[in-house]
Order: sequence, then C-alpha cells, then structure tokens
Amino acid sequence: MCLHNESRNEEIRVGTMRIPIDISGSMPIYRQIQSYFEDQISAGKLPAGVKLPATRLLASRLGVSRITVMNAYAELAAEGLVVGRPGSGTYVADSPTFGTRNPAKCNREGTWPLWQRSVSSNDPADDDISCLIVPEMSGTISFASGYGDPELIPIDDLCKAARGSLRRNPVETFAATDPRGYLPLRRTISSILAMQGIPVHPDEVLVTSGSQQAISLIARLLVEPGDVVIVEEPTFVGALNSFRRAGARLIGIPLDENGMKLDMLEPIMRKLQPALIYTIPTFHNPTGVCMSENRRLWLVELAERYSVPILEDDFAGDLSYGGRSIPPIKALDQNGDVLYISTFSKIIAPGLRLGYLVASGPVLERLVRLKQISDVATSTFIQRTFESFISVGRYYSHIQRLCRIYGDRRNALVEALERAGRHCWDWRSPEGGFFLWLEMCDRIPPEILRDAMYAHGVSAVMGAIFFTKQPDTTILRLNFAALPPLAIGAGVERLQRAVTTALSGLENGHKEFKVPCEAIV
Amino acid sequence: MCLHNESRNEEIRVGTMRIPIDISGSMPIYRQIQSYFEDQISAGKLPAGVKLPATRLLASRLGVSRITVMNAYAELAAEGLVVGRPGSGTYVADSPTFGTRNPAKCNREGTWPLWQRSVSSNDPADDDISCLIVPEMSGTISFASGYGDPELIPIDDLCKAARGSLRRNPVETFAATDPRGYLPLRRTISSILAMQGIPVHPDEVLVTSGSQQAISLIARLLVEPGDVVIVEEPTFVGALNSFRRAGARLIGIPLDENGMKLDMLEPIMRKLQPALIYTIPTFHNPTGVCMSENRRLWLVELAERYSVPILEDDFAGDLSYGGRSIPPIKALDQNGDVLYISTFSKIIAPGLRLGYLVASGPVLERLVRLKQISDVATSTFIQRTFESFISVGRYYSHIQRLCRIYGDRRNALVEALERAGRHCWDWRSPEGGFFLWLEMCDRIPPEILRDAMYAHGVSAVMGAIFFTKQPDTTILRLNFAALPPLAIGAGVERLQRAVTTALSGLENGHKEFKVPCEAIV
Repeated sequence: MCLHNESRNEEIRVGTMRIPIDISGSMPIYRQIQSYFEDQISAGKLPAGVKLPATRLLASRLGVSRITVMNAYAELAAEGLVVGRPGSGTYVADSPTFGTRNPAKCNREGTWPLWQRSVSSNDPADDDISCLIVPEMSGTISFASGYGDPELIPIDDLCKAARGSLRRNPVETFAATDPRGYLPLRRTISSILAMQGIPVHPDEVLVTSGSQQAISLIARLLVEPGDVVIVEEPTFVGALNSFRRAGARLIGIPLDENGMKLDMLEPIMRKLQPALIYTIPTFHNPTGVCMSENRRLWLVELAERYSVPILEDDFAGDLSYGGRSIPPIKALDQNGDVLYISTFSKIIAPGLRLGYLVASGPVLERLVRLKQISDVATSTFIQRTFESFISVGRYYSHIQRLCRIYGDRRNALVEALERAGRHCWDWRSPEGGFFLWLEMCDRIPPEILRDAMYAHGVSAVMGAIFFTKQPDTTILRLNFAALPPLAIGAGVERLQRAVTTALSGLENGHKEFKVPCEAIV
Repeated sequence: MCLHNESRNEEIRVGTMRIPIDISGSMPIYRQIQSYFEDQISAGKLPAGVKLPATRLLASRLGVSRITVMNAYAELAAEGLVVGRPGSGTYVADSPTFGTRNPAKCNREGTWPLWQRSVSSNDPADDDISCLIVPEMSGTISFASGYGDPELIPIDDLCKAARGSLRRNPVETFAATDPRGYLPLRRTISSILAMQGIPVHPDEVLVTSGSQQAISLIARLLVEPGDVVIVEEPTFVGALNSFRRAGARLIGIPLDENGMKLDMLEPIMRKLQPALIYTIPTFHNPTGVCMSENRRLWLVELAERYSVPILEDDFAGDLSYGGRSIPPIKALDQNGDVLYISTFSKIIAPGLRLGYLVASGPVLERLVRLKQISDVATSTFIQRTFESFISVGRYYSHIQRLCRIYGDRRNALVEALERAGRHCWDWRSPEGGFFLWLEMCDRIPPEILRDAMYAHGVSAVMGAIFFTKQPDTTILRLNFAALPPLAIGAGVERLQRAVTTALSGLENGHKEFKVPCEAIV
C-alpha cells in the first residue's frame, strides 16, 4: 500500500495504489473497494478534501468496470465519507461523520427556515391520532387491516399477466398513456359495471391510482374552503382527511340499520346547500351497514331536487355474503348527479394502487384535467398488467371465491362474539364487506383500551377515528376478512380479556400498564 | 329456435332454447352467445323487459362454464342491449339503442344538473390551447415529444427486473407499501444523489408518481390562492398548470444565457414575499439554458435571506453533452430551503410514472401526509420492479448511452438549422437535455404557423404555451432526443418550408389552407 498524499489537495496517485481485490471472494468487488476507502478515511490516511482517483483511471488500473468503481464511490458518498462534485470528481468529505446517516440535521443553525415553520401543523387533515392506534408486536392478532387477506391475492395469475403483457407489448407497456386510462381496461371496467346495472361508456370511466385518488380529485374539484360536505357518521377516514384538507365543513349524519338517516339530511340540504354528499351505501366502512333500496331512491331524489352531487364509494359492493344484492345508487341516477368510485386495491391487490371513477357530464372533463395536473396518468405498466389479468368472468369468479371465504370468516367472528356474550359488547352482523362494528357496553377511554389491547396482543382500529366529532361510546372496527377463522376465535378471546382488564383498571382508578413509546406506530 | 316470450315480463324458457354453438370454430363461445342475443334483440324477437335466462341455467344447458355466459351478458350490457339488475337478473333494455355507446347522453332533460354547470370552465389551469397544438397525421415528423426516444427504453432489462421481482417476492410485490416509498428504492435514489453532491438520507426522499405529482404536492402545500409564485419565463407548462390550479399569481422572470435573471428577481422578492420560486436550472425546459454556478449560489442566498423556498426541477440534469456539469442547487443548500425533484419517467420510461422529491425539515412530513391523502402511496409493483432494475452503476451506464446518442442528435439538429441559416430563425445550442428553443426572426400568428406546419407534415410545440403571458415573438420548442438524425434533417427542411409558406400567406393577407377540425387533438 503506497498512497501518496503529501498535501490536502493533491490527487491520489493511482499509479502507486494497491487495493487488494479478491476476484473469487464472496464480497462483491465494489464492496471491497468501498471497504478499502472506508478504512483509509477512518484511519485518517485520506484526509478531508483529498480527491479520489477518477473512476475511469481506477477502473482500468484495477481491471474492473467503471461502473464497479462508481458503485463503490456512490456507497461511500451515501455514507457521507466522500462528496461528489459534478464535473470535477469525488473528494473526501469535510467532516466524514457529516449528516447523511441522520436525516433532517443538515441545517446550519439548528433551526428551520421561517417558511418551513409556517408550514407547521396547522393542516386540518392532521389530527394527532396516535392514541387511537393500537401498536402491534410479534404475535399480535390484528383485526386492524383495511384490506382483504393478502394470501388471497391472485399472485400467480397477476404474475402471468405481467409477463404476458411484457412479452406481447414490451414497448407499449413502458410508454405514456391516455390520462383517462388505458382504453381496453376502461372497456372491461364498463362491462363489469354493466353487469351491476350501471350502463356506462368507457369514456365515462377515469382510471385512478386507487380510490383514494378518486376521492381526493373530487374533493379538490368540488369542495372550496368553508363548503359543507355531508358524510355518514362514522365514515372512511381517508375520505374525511381529503375533505378536511379541502377545507370542508363536515356534517355527519348518523346511520341506522338501513344506512344514512335521510330524515335528518333533508332539512340540512334545504338550509345549507352542501357541496357534496359522500356515502358508502353498500357494506359501509366502518359499520358494515347497507343502505336500503328505498333510501337509495330517496337520496337520488334529494340530490336532484337540491342539485347536490353524490359521491358513491363502492369499495366492496361485490363482497356480499348471502344477502341479496342491492343496485348501486349510480344505477338509479338518471340525471348525472352521482359520481361513482371503486377500486381493485381492496378486492384484488393493494400493491396495484388501481381504482376508477365514473361520472357523466362536464364534471368528468374537469376531473380528467385535474388528474393530468396531479400525476399525468396512472402507470401504463400497472394498467396493462391488470388489463391482461382481468376479464368480467375472471373478476366474478375471483369475487365468488372471496365471498365464500370471507363469508365463513364473518360467521366465525359473529360466533366468537356470541360466545363472549352481549353483556360486554354489541354488534350487528354485516352482510358483506370486510368490517364488523363492535360497540362496548361501557365507555372506556381510548388510551386505556388501547393499552389493554396491546398488553393482550390483539389489535383493531379505534372507532373514534371514523367520526367527525368525538363519539359518546367506545367502539372498535374489526376486520374479519384478513384473518383465518382460528385466529379470529383466539383474537376475540384476547379482546374480551383486554376489555375486562381495561374495565377493572378503570375501577381501580389507574392504568396498570404502559405502552412503550417506540411501539406506537 | 323456439323461444317463448308471450308476455313482456315472462322469462325465456331455457329448456326450449337452441343456441347454435360451434365449439371448434374460431369465434369464442361467449361471442357466439352474444351474437345470438344481439340478433334476437335487434330482430325484435326479445322485446324490452324480457328477462334473459339465469347464467347458471343457461351455462349448464349449453354445457359451457358460467363465466362464459357472464362474459356474453356483460358484452351485451356494455352494448346497451341488456341491463343487469343486481339480485334479480339480466333484462332486455328498455330502449336497446340507449346510451352506452354514446357517453354523456344519459341525462333526462338534455341539460346537466345545476351543480355541474357551476363546475364549468372557470378553472384557471384550463386555457384553451388548441390553437397552439400542431395536429399530426401519419408521416408527420414530430419534434413535439416531451420525452426521450421510446426506442431507447431499456425494455429487456425492465422486463427482466419485473419478472425477477415477481419471482422472488410475489406477495410483497402486490402488497401495500410505505407512503414514502419502498425503502431499498429510496436508498438507491440517495446513492445516485450522493454522486451528484447531494448527501441525503433515504428518509428525506419521497417517491412520487412522476415529477408532475411532486410539483402538484408542493404547489398544494405551499401555495394559497393569491400567493406569488416566481417562475422562469418561459417554463414547463405542467408546473404552470399546477401553480395556476393552486390559485397562484405567477410572475415570470426572463432568462438569458446564464439562466434566470436574478437582478430582476431581487426587487420582487423584497416587495412581494413569494410563496415559492420554481426553477429548472439545468437544461431548462423549454429553452435548454443552464443557470450559471454564480447565479445558483446567488439564488440560494436570496432564498435564505427572504425565506422563500426554491423548487428545483432537475428533470434532465444528468443528460449533459460535452459541457461541464454544474452541481444542482440542492447541493448548495445548507439551510433546508431547496425542494429538489427529479423523475425516471423522462430518462428511463414514461410508462413507469416514477419520480421523487427530496426535502429536509418539517415540510417533508407535510408532503408525505399530503401524498398519503392524495393516493396513499405509489404502486409497490412499480417501485419493486424499478428497484430491481436500477443500481447506481446501471443508472449511469444508461445515462452515458443516452448522452452519446442524444448528443449526436443535438448536433444533427444544430447542423440542419445552420444549413437553413439564421435569416429565418435563431437559437442557442443546448448543452444537454431534450430541447432546443427556436425563435423566428419574424412574428407569425400561432394559428398561421400551426396550419403551415400541419400542411408540411412537421410538428413541434408552440412556444407560447410555456409563458405566463403572451410572448412578443414566435417560438417553437424542438425535441431533438426522440428522433433519429435523418428524420431531424428532413424535419428541419419541412419546418423551413412551413415557415416560408406561413410568411408568404401572411404577406398575401390570408390563410391558404385550413386544418380539418377533427385533426386538432
């Protein structure tokens, strides 16, 4: 090893460098180069400001490719040991311990600029909900998921579809696409919808990156700060956050076993002219309730009379376990008042981030335009893969399979809850979807219940996050779709113990356990 | 054929139906069933309101799978010939010519609801730019692309990566992901950035669905209606639209050969306290100009002094053709004032829709939160595929290849323009990126030039769309990266003829040709 660096700014003479490279070793060569320089720098043999050999030169000297050397330098740079100066070269960093391992520390004065401080926590969509999230440790039985069972994702068929699409249309798969979405996919969506009694032209379908994007686009287009938005109370928290972010004044209408209580809605519509009514009429999230057919008709009438758009979120309308199906509200809409959204993220695979919205009339063009401004279009690769996976027949056969399995799990949950008895909690058995809404007979402060659940290794979503204002009762949303029946039974037993513990803790007037802070995700 | 349908509401008796099915034929069976019903309905043999046989029954009768029948019914429904009524069955539509082939026509009174009319064309981001788009016909030589050459997309390697990721991690590939983005991908991005002199922790990287989403998120977070946003004049139209949509008051600062004229900026900053400065300092879109190193330092100083965030759009900073590279502005930022964005959509493949932003300090958490509200996270499938494709070495070797090829094309364009001579137009040779900014010596109304270009089979983007207000001169943005050198030469000849024609048409006081309306995309 004979590195010469008499002066801080002198370049290392590559001609005299000897880096021990073991070609046959298990350590990649770039790692060997990286490790050599790490040692030199940490030993102070390469002080700050010294220029590393040019990648080309070092590569030819070591008999390796230039990319290998570049990878080594990149790793060193990522460690903060060297700094690249474009057009000049790579230098040992001024203070080799400098910042990169430690984010948000590169500020000179230890304070952030004024403009950053004013972008502070005044975001209306940013309540602190940490007390409502039950932390999970290894072994926790979790009813907290918002999705179906990942084991039921049709991985093999999706993989085949991806490979097929790549093989048949490699160029198109990576090319740009129509902001509305890939036309053959929109055609398939319109066929699926036609089967549900919603006749829509493929040009009335806008493909989105999941239904969250559809909600966000609609909120941004239709809701101005101060506007009234009607929601079910409780409702999907992702929608609440989109509306809050748009500056909405949220008014929650309670639900009964037939869905949103429309007798309470009408006076509000007359007085306040809402900008939007958001509803999940079928297998409602979080309560599992279905809006009756009469109320659907009534809601469409109200929307037409007062000229208020309805946003119908049909995230799980096809997941029906034995009950009869009810047509979506969109199927009753003759006037163009209903914006309909759904998603494949929940029913097929969350990692796709693929959903769609359906709208008729001028509003559609505004939404397409907003989508374009927001992210140009949803990835062609995702759309083409999914299009070669899906057909109406395959969609329904997949749904049938899910219904069979999730129906059994719904039954398992209801039976386990029955075993525990109604003296401790109350619920209504959902006819479809993912969720059961479990109301405690006694009020328990959320943080007490959360801590008890954590201690007993069971998790669920605290009902309070789904409300526009604090509810009077203590409620949990249980996802029964993502867990096998045995785990469901065991989970309910743990839950019952947790509730008992929380109640006895309340009686004793103190909390008996403390959640470690780092466990709160 | 013995279909019995004595009454409108009577169900077809499946027992007596005979649908001729040709199992060995080339027409899929569902198409044969579809075609049978099409004939029956159009011949009036199945009048409106008649219920089609239950899918299960018909399937068993025909000896085909139920999915086959469902596919046929779905096609019929998509044609508007039948209507599904969930839970009841499929019926011949009331008026079989009804709407589905014709979007936006399902409105009863022929007018849209009031609320839709108020969502009218008052969107500030929605100027009518049809007069600025040159329509293309088959054979048109197009300089209009915003991307690189699709032939240079590393299709094979991306396909291999997708297959590899699917094989190794099928479950994770379709599962949900961190809203910030897939961590190994963020690590690679931070290594690439380290090589450019930007030391950033992977947690300071937010993966976005293309850089358009990054711009949109930043605009939504930092720009309130009425806020001043500083942009280069001209600049990227996608950014202009995001800022307009956020209600910004746009102030354009002209460019010279060293980039944004900062002497004009300072008085505005002192007086107006802008919410944001948007700049494309390297190989600027649309002009190709590079901001000098001195101005970069000066801009960072100004941002710090007046506490104004800078949004640095580095969409093509690595595409340098021979000139020395200049460090990104972010590399000079010690204070957390610079938000840096870049994209893989332009350099690797548009169909990915994959970009990222880098920010330090509290603003980053706000952006992550806004990303989550907007679309939860960028598709895991895309991120994992891309992560298995990319490494620092591969990134730079791909960039080197692009630079070699695009550099030659830049030369070809400059030589062709030289041949045409500077009496007709003027330009500066760009040192990198995709674009050359071609200024006409004479002013030509955009619609005249557009029509002449259409007539001569050449296309480019009219410069006017990149301005905050109408420019005094006539300018075109030419993309040289997406065309092979021969096409570039031929395209410039056509362009020269188009300009000559347009000028002579102007002298004659009338337009000599008319673009067919339907050609205007």
